[in-house]
Amino acid sequence: MDSFVAGVDIGGTGTKFGIVDNLGNVLSSDTMSTRGHADIHAYIDELHDKLMLLIDKAGGVGRIKGIGVGAPNGNVYTGTIEYAPNLPWKGIIPLAKLIQDKFKLPVKLTNDANAAAVGEMTYGAAKGMKDFILIALGTGVGSGIVANGELIYGHDGMAGELGHTIIIPDGRIHPGTGKKGSLESYASATGVAKSAVEILNNTNRPSSLRTIPIENIDSKAVFEAATAGDEVAKEVFEFTGRILGISLANFVMFSSPEAIILFGGLTKAGDLILKPTREHMEANLIEVFQNKIKILVSHLKESDAAILGASALMWE
Amino acid sequence: MDSFVAGVDIGGTGTKFGIVDNLGNVLSSDTMSTRGHADIHAYIDELHDKLMLLIDKAGGVGRIKGIGVGAPNGNVYTGTIEYAPNLPWKGIIPLAKLIQDKFKLPVKLTNDANAAAVGEMTYGAAKGMKDFILIALGTGVGSGIVANGELIYGHDGMAGELGHTIIIPDGRIHPGTGKKGSLESYASATGVAKSAVEILNNTNRPSSLRTIPIENIDSKAVFEAATAGDEVAKEVFEFTGRILGISLANFVMFSSPEAIILFGGLTKAGDLILKPTREHMEANLIEVFQNKIKILVSHLKESDAAILGASALMWE
Repeated sequence: MDSFVAGVDIGGTGTKFGIVDNLGNVLSSDTMSTRGHADIHAYIDELHDKLMLLIDKAGGVGRIKGIGVGAPNGNVYTGTIEYAPNLPWKGIIPLAKLIQDKFKLPVKLTNDANAAAVGEMTYGAAKGMKDFILIALGTGVGSGIVANGELIYGHDGMAGELGHTIIIPDGRIHPGTGKKGSLESYASATGVAKSAVEILNNTNRPSSLRTIPIENIDSKAVFEAATAGDEVAKEVFEFTGRILGISLANFVMFSSPEAIILFGGLTKAGDLILKPTREHMEANLIEVFQNKIKILVSHLKESDAAILGASALMWE
Repeated sequence: MDSFVAGVDIGGTGTKFGIVDNLGNVLSSDTMSTRGHADIHAYIDELHDKLMLLIDKAGGVGRIKGIGVGAPNGNVYTGTIEYAPNLPWKGIIPLAKLIQDKFKLPVKLTNDANAAAVGEMTYGAAKGMKDFILIALGTGVGSGIVANGELIYGHDGMAGELGHTIIIPDGRIHPGTGKKGSLESYASATGVAKSAVEILNNTNRPSSLRTIPIENIDSKAVFEAATAGDEVAKEVFEFTGRILGISLANFVMFSSPEAIILFGGLTKAGDLILKPTREHMEANLIEVFQNKIKILVSHLKESDAAILGASALMWE
């Protein structure tokens, strides 16, 4: 009798969960708010009620190999989430143990980008690869690094924070960390909007973006303006791709991956961001790495990807 | 009966080799010029003549488990050295096979910094660690990265070129690679000399270094001036430590190592470089990594370290 795994992806706003078979089919899924319960036990009670409906439909807990959980600041070694700034529960939360006790099933927890990397390796663009890096370009920049066929967790479980690497010393300040010039300050949805606002505020250059109230400018507006040919918006993507490309070159010179898999909202900008990214990555690589590292965009269905990634931890 | 390993370290100028026991004692060693033979076969003939003397003294080939070789641009997967700019043999040289055929012993080849990392893990400051990064600060900047207890080789065997990561986009040009703003352009013996010359050429600031012909200024002269209190020379080390510290922060946010082991000539500057390095590393780390990553200086005897590192490949 086939067995299945459950995947739970805890995001800052919503939690997605579902049942997955070993071919990567999401058999059933549902969502709930992450922010509905200030008390973690009440949150887990609701998750239990809703996820058990799916588990029962799949044949009961006997058919489920375990529950994989992806969460911001999730630590695979301790099963805890630690000081996650975007979650309602503060301090160190023993999430894996709480879920395990409630469901009486094995639980494996890691951060969301690591989970996405395992998902790509198990079901997606990195299938069969032993060395690759996943970069999640969303509101922030997350990353999961696979080398020698294994996720790099580091000595404390916290490896793979490439969004916080410094690419422009003394550059733009990151409001969350207070650090200056990190990749995430530039190559995220937030960073793209900020780059546009900077040009609009600091120059008199004409731009269709000037018709939008400055506080409403987001990466989607910049994307639409660039697609319509707006020069300022196009320059924002060129600049973002340059920062991202130099950073990717640095990551390549670290672990020499077969491919870099890009994932998340910003990849929807397509060649607007991918072309300058590729170009500046190649221009900053030393010869031995040139023209052999693939930049791939994740092809997992976005609504399924988070659940697939989390669930794949249990096949690892 | 105990068995031993042989280690061969091929540097740009000299080749060191020796016999090592499993406790990391160098039982015997010798050197030869790397540049004596334009023909690789003649070079290997000389290495064979000289190393066999040591092997025979240790009890003959029957006592030798194999030969570990560290060489610039050495590729562990193919056993070749590839386009090494500082070696007399051009193109791709099947070095491991040539040595293996000559000695009739197993041979394992990797680049010199990876070999040094294995040496630190087997005999040195990284003993017992599963996650650390070795940075070799010499004429250039080499690196070897260990994660999950294994060297990171990457998909093509060429991982760990941290000296070529870009830390100041559009910064100082690297004469060897043509790339701008790489770590090696600043945090190497060459980089230290260049930083001093830049200040002397671009300012009128008084400095004891002005008594030295500009083309004779090297990192040793800058070190001596700094030790004697020269402000320009002290600023050079502060600047170098800042660049190195930001880079180390980036490496930590990649693989979250337990420690970074510094190795090579520049470490002799002691706190002149270590203090600003530590300070700027901490200042650029996000909170979760702060105050827990050790920066250690290799304590292996410098004359032995290269041989130990290469030989340790055979215990791996």
